[in-house]
Amino acid sequence: MNEISQASELAGFFPFWDKLSQPMKEQLIRHVSVRKYPAKTAIYQGRQNCLGLLLIRSGQIRAYIMTEEGRELTLYRLFSGDICLFSASCVFNSIQFDIFLTAEQDTEVLHIPPDIYRECIEQSAPAALYTNELMASGFSEVMWVLEQVLSKKMDARLAAFLIEESALEETDDLTLTHEQIANHLGSAREVMTRMLKYFQSEGLVRLTRGHVELTDVPGLTRLAKDSLR
Amino acid sequence: MNEISQASELAGFFPFWDKLSQPMKEQLIRHVSVRKYPAKTAIYQGRQNCLGLLLIRSGQIRAYIMTEEGRELTLYRLFSGDICLFSASCVFNSIQFDIFLTAEQDTEVLHIPPDIYRECIEQSAPAALYTNELMASGFSEVMWVLEQVLSKKMDARLAAFLIEESALEETDDLTLTHEQIANHLGSAREVMTRMLKYFQSEGLVRLTRGHVELTDVPGLTRLAKDSLR
Repeated sequence: MNEISQASELAGFFPFWDKLSQPMKEQLIRHVSVRKYPAKTAIYQGRQNCLGLLLIRSGQIRAYIMTEEGRELTLYRLFSGDICLFSASCVFNSIQFDIFLTAEQDTEVLHIPPDIYRECIEQSAPAALYTNELMASGFSEVMWVLEQVLSKKMDARLAAFLIEESALEETDDLTLTHEQIANHLGSAREVMTRMLKYFQSEGLVRLTRGHVELTDVPGLTRLAKDSLR
Repeated sequence: MNEISQASELAGFFPFWDKLSQPMKEQLIRHVSVRKYPAKTAIYQGRQNCLGLLLIRSGQIRAYIMTEEGRELTLYRLFSGDICLFSASCVFNSIQFDIFLTAEQDTEVLHIPPDIYRECIEQSAPAALYTNELMASGFSEVMWVLEQVLSKKMDARLAAFLIEESALEETDDLTLTHEQIANHLGSAREVMTRMLKYFQSEGLVRLTRGHVELTDVPGLTRLAKDSLR
């Protein structure tokens, strides 16, 4: 990758690129590197290993937390063109929580080391301001999850999750165990099994071992609406 | 309040004060004003009315969200010396949630209008960077609440809440209804009543109408430890 194509790619990720000083641009170009994560590999496991800023070229990253009981709760997903801020959480003293990141598909990113990124937002108000927006965006996702968890409308949450997965995977036949679904929704397997069986009895899904087939997408969509803002 | 005392008070709240330009300092001094909120009054009710940045001189502000069912869940509290960022949430495009703020005690703040504050963080990287830390701090509090809600260890959460309230109010005899406690913890009144009666049977509290008296603080502290990181 030459310097010119790197600069134009970074400019695509950073709306503040044109406002950076020439030395700062050169430093970012010098330190950016390509990283590849095969599907289902862990990218980041909390604050103990500070990775840096990730600019997602292709693929999909899932951000989640682990509960005390070892359950996972999906917070949000990042796609091509998105910036992953929380892999650089060590850049901020006040981040006192651990987010886990996993590549859900084969994922390719541009990596910027944490110290270089820190220097960038220390020097440039537009870069720091944009970082505020990135953080606010992640914050908003988490607030939505918190509201979902509190609202306890598990039927609507499950329906919304199945529709989202179906859209992401581009199939109505999802390869998912009840355990996996429970992890995504921060619930227990037994609760999910009960709810899925209820969905099946309503003709919304067909269950086979390790699979959930969506048989009434309009019906699931109606149900999901209750859980969406 | 004269300009010199205002400048020194703003410098106490803003660690980046000395790095601001002279015109920016003068603009902040020109637009800052004192506001007073009597105990139990609403300060902010989500994004519809963008208030601005609040620098807390004295008192206590409680930040909470409302669930769909109309229950309240306390996210965090702010005290003298703290900065309330989310009353200026309109400054950030990516904040897509509504936080409510109430003065828990008689509260006096310095108020900075949202457009002035926005100008400040657009011009000054240190100001924008500090705003990142404020947002990260609020984010961390909310992540902690989310973990508490997920962990479902309601006994430990209730014990932690009672000890915290007792420390804040500086009394072991709390004036609180079961309904109010349920609102704070995002739970239902019946669940709280059951748990409080269990606490009473264990000798941890004594219940009278509208009051919870802490009778075994060390015991409550032991119980609370389970819910604390």
